[in-house]
Amino acid sequence: MSEKFTDFFQVKPREAVEKLIEALLSPLEAETVTLTQALDRFSAESISAPSSLPPFSRSTVDGYAVKSQDTFGASEGFPAMLKVSGTITMGSLPERSLKQGEAMAIPTGGALPEGADAVVMVEHTESPDPDFVEIYRPASPLENVVQAGEDIREGNPVLEKGQKIRPQELGLLAALGITRVSVTRKPVVGVISTGNEIVPPETTPLPGQIRDVNRFLLQGLIERNGGETRFIALVPDEEAALKIACEEGLVSCDLLLLSGGSSVGTRDLTLKVLESFPGFELLVHGVAVSPGKPTLLMKVGKKVVFGLPGHPVSTWVIAHLFVTKALMSLLGVSESPALVWERAIVQGNIPSAQGREDFIRAKIAGKGKDKIATPIFSKSGIISSLVAANALIQIPLNSEGVYKGDEVDILMLL
Amino acid sequence: MSEKFTDFFQVKPREAVEKLIEALLSPLEAETVTLTQALDRFSAESISAPSSLPPFSRSTVDGYAVKSQDTFGASEGFPAMLKVSGTITMGSLPERSLKQGEAMAIPTGGALPEGADAVVMVEHTESPDPDFVEIYRPASPLENVVQAGEDIREGNPVLEKGQKIRPQELGLLAALGITRVSVTRKPVVGVISTGNEIVPPETTPLPGQIRDVNRFLLQGLIERNGGETRFIALVPDEEAALKIACEEGLVSCDLLLLSGGSSVGTRDLTLKVLESFPGFELLVHGVAVSPGKPTLLMKVGKKVVFGLPGHPVSTWVIAHLFVTKALMSLLGVSESPALVWERAIVQGNIPSAQGREDFIRAKIAGKGKDKIATPIFSKSGIISSLVAANALIQIPLNSEGVYKGDEVDILMLL
Repeated sequence: MSEKFTDFFQVKPREAVEKLIEALLSPLEAETVTLTQALDRFSAESISAPSSLPPFSRSTVDGYAVKSQDTFGASEGFPAMLKVSGTITMGSLPERSLKQGEAMAIPTGGALPEGADAVVMVEHTESPDPDFVEIYRPASPLENVVQAGEDIREGNPVLEKGQKIRPQELGLLAALGITRVSVTRKPVVGVISTGNEIVPPETTPLPGQIRDVNRFLLQGLIERNGGETRFIALVPDEEAALKIACEEGLVSCDLLLLSGGSSVGTRDLTLKVLESFPGFELLVHGVAVSPGKPTLLMKVGKKVVFGLPGHPVSTWVIAHLFVTKALMSLLGVSESPALVWERAIVQGNIPSAQGREDFIRAKIAGKGKDKIATPIFSKSGIISSLVAANALIQIPLNSEGVYKGDEVDILMLL
Repeated sequence: MSEKFTDFFQVKPREAVEKLIEALLSPLEAETVTLTQALDRFSAESISAPSSLPPFSRSTVDGYAVKSQDTFGASEGFPAMLKVSGTITMGSLPERSLKQGEAMAIPTGGALPEGADAVVMVEHTESPDPDFVEIYRPASPLENVVQAGEDIREGNPVLEKGQKIRPQELGLLAALGITRVSVTRKPVVGVISTGNEIVPPETTPLPGQIRDVNRFLLQGLIERNGGETRFIALVPDEEAALKIACEEGLVSCDLLLLSGGSSVGTRDLTLKVLESFPGFELLVHGVAVSPGKPTLLMKVGKKVVFGLPGHPVSTWVIAHLFVTKALMSLLGVSESPALVWERAIVQGNIPSAQGREDFIRAKIAGKGKDKIATPIFSKSGIISSLVAANALIQIPLNSEGVYKGDEVDILMLL
C-alpha cells in the first residue's frame, strides 16, 4: 500500500504548474463599461490619448499673468510696475493678448493669455490701484504655468492592455473624455463542494460532519482577484450527483473548482467522474507545495478544472498560487495586483524539506527593513490560524529551512 | 493683498485634523448581511464562538487510528502488528470504540474513534491481510490528530467589532455556522463638482474649460474604502445652483465632498453657500499638508462637509488622508485597511519646508530592505503623474527635506 501512495503523487513544482496554466488559458472576450463601472477592472486594449492635456496653458496659482522678462530684476525695494490690462475668468479664453509692460489677473486654473509666459503669485504683488500692479519678485519663464500638452500629448499611451484601472486611471480617462472603456469580461468561476462529511454552513452538523468552509475562502479570493463566483452545489461522494454538478459547472463557468472533501476517496471519485467527460486530460497530479500537495489540475475540452485539497489551509495556499494565476490568465494579466509579495525577517527557525516549497502562516509586524514575520505553527485543518495570519512565509523548493534572522519572501494576506 | 492671503490660511497640521474628524463622526447603524455579501465589510459587533471547532477529534491524514502506546518501539525491522477492527467512513461517528491492540482505517478528516489517541500515516504501514496491519513507526500521543475544540473553543472571540471581514473570516464564520453577520452600513458619500471651468467628461471642453477629473478619483477611493459614492451634480460658480446641490447632498448623504474648481472664487463661494445653512461651523480653513493646503473642513448640523482643493493631485492626497479617515470613523474602524504604509529608501534629494507635511508622488521598486522610492517631481495639476505613481513619499511636518539614501515613510497606491 505504501508504494501505491508514493506513486500516487508525481508532484510538479510551482513554476511548472504556473506555466501550464498560462499556456492553457487565454484572455476572455472584452466588454464595454462606463467609467463608474470600470474601477479595478482590467483594460482589454491599449489606449492612446485622443487629444493633448491640458488643451490650453493654465495657471497653477492665483496671481498675475506676465511676460517674464518684464519682471526680471524686480525686488521688494524695486518692484516692477505693470499695467493691469484685464482679468481672466474661469472657463473661457482671454479676449486679448498680453503686451509688453502689461499683466492680467488670473485665477488658479485660468487660461494663460497669448503673449504671457509666466504667472506671479498674488502673494508677491501689491495692487494699490486697480489699473496697476507692483511685482516684488522676478518670474522665470513658465513659472506657475502648466503648458498645453504638458500633462499628456495626443497619441501618447494612456492605458496598456491588461492594466488595472485604479482611481488614478479613472481620473485620467475622464480628463481625456474617454467615458467608455473596453475591459476583459469577469471570469465566472464555478465552485463545487464535495465530501460526505461536508454540510452547508446553515445546518447543524451531525456527529462526524463539518460545515463547508472552502467555498467561502474561495469566493473571497475569486472576487478580490477580479472574478465572479458561481456556487454550483454541495455534493456527497456519489458519482451521479458529482457528474451532474460537473456538467453544469463545465457548461456555465470559465473555470471550475472542486473542493471540500479531504479524503483520498473524494479525490479518487473526482478523478473518476471527470475522466468520464470527453476531452478529459489529467495535467497535474500533485504539486511540490506544502500544504496542498494533493492538488489536481485537469482539462475537459477547453475548460480547466482544479481538484483542490480538502483542508482549508491547503486550499487557501493552492488557491492563492494557482487559482489566482488562472484568473489572471483569463483576464490577460501577468501578475495579480491583489497578491502583494514582500520581504521580512523571520522570527524563528523553520525546518523544511528539499523538493517541496513550503508556505507557513505568519503574523507580520513593522515596516521596511524592520518588518518581521513570526511563524504560526499549526495543523492545516486549523481555520483560526488563517484568521490569525496576515501573510504566508515562502520557503523555496530546494531549501532545508530558514533560521531566525534570515530574510524571507512573504505573501501578504490583507 | 498679501496680508489677506497670509491670514486666509490658518493651517492645521494633519494630526489635529484627524482628531477633529474622529471626534465629529461616529459609526453608522448596523445592517445584517449573508456571508456571500459580507466580504470586505466591517463587523458591527464582537462575535464569540457559539460552539467548539472541530466538534469532534479528526484525523489529518489517511491511515490507521491507534492507541499510541500500542505503537511504541515499532520500527521497519520490528513492526507493531494490530488487529483492524473497523473502517471509519466520512461524515459519521465510528460505531465502536478502539480496544488495546486494535487499529481502524481512517480517512483524512475522519472522526477518531473513542479510545484512539493518534493516527499512523498509511505510508508507514502495510496491510497484507485486511484483518491486520503492520505499523513501522511509533506514533506519539495526538500525532496526526486535530482534537475537538483545538481550532476554536466555544465562547472564544471570533470577530472584533470594526474588524474587516476577509475571505479567512468568511471561512471561520461558515465553519461555526454563522451565516448572517451584522456589519456597519456603507457610508454614502455625496460628491459635488464645482467650478465654471469644469465640464462633464462626456462633453468636449470649449476653450478655457477642462473635464471633471476629481469626481472619478474620489469615487474610486470611496469605493475602495468601504463607502458608496452618490454623485450629486456638477455646478458652476453660482450661488443658487450650489445651494440646491448642497441641500440635496446634506439630506441624502452621510458625508459631503465639494470638489473641482481650483480658483479662490470657487472656494469663497463654497464657504458663502455653506455658511447660509443653519448649524454651520467652519472647523478647518487650510491644512499644513502639501499639496492640498486650501482644504476646508465644515460641519452643517451633524453632517461633515469637505471643501477639497481643486487640483487633482491635491484632492487625491487630501482624500487619502482625511476623506478616508472620515469613512473609517463612519465605519467604526480605527485605520483603513486599504491604506498600506510602508518604508523605502529614497532615490533622490527632496527639499521641504518646516511647518508643512509634504506628500511626493513616487515610483516604488524592490522589496523589504531593498525597496526604493524614486520621486516623481511634477506640478499638482499633472494627472498623468498620478498614473505613473504607485506611492506617496511622506516628508514630516518639521523636516527640511530628505537626502538620497534616507529611509522614508510611503503610502502605497496599489
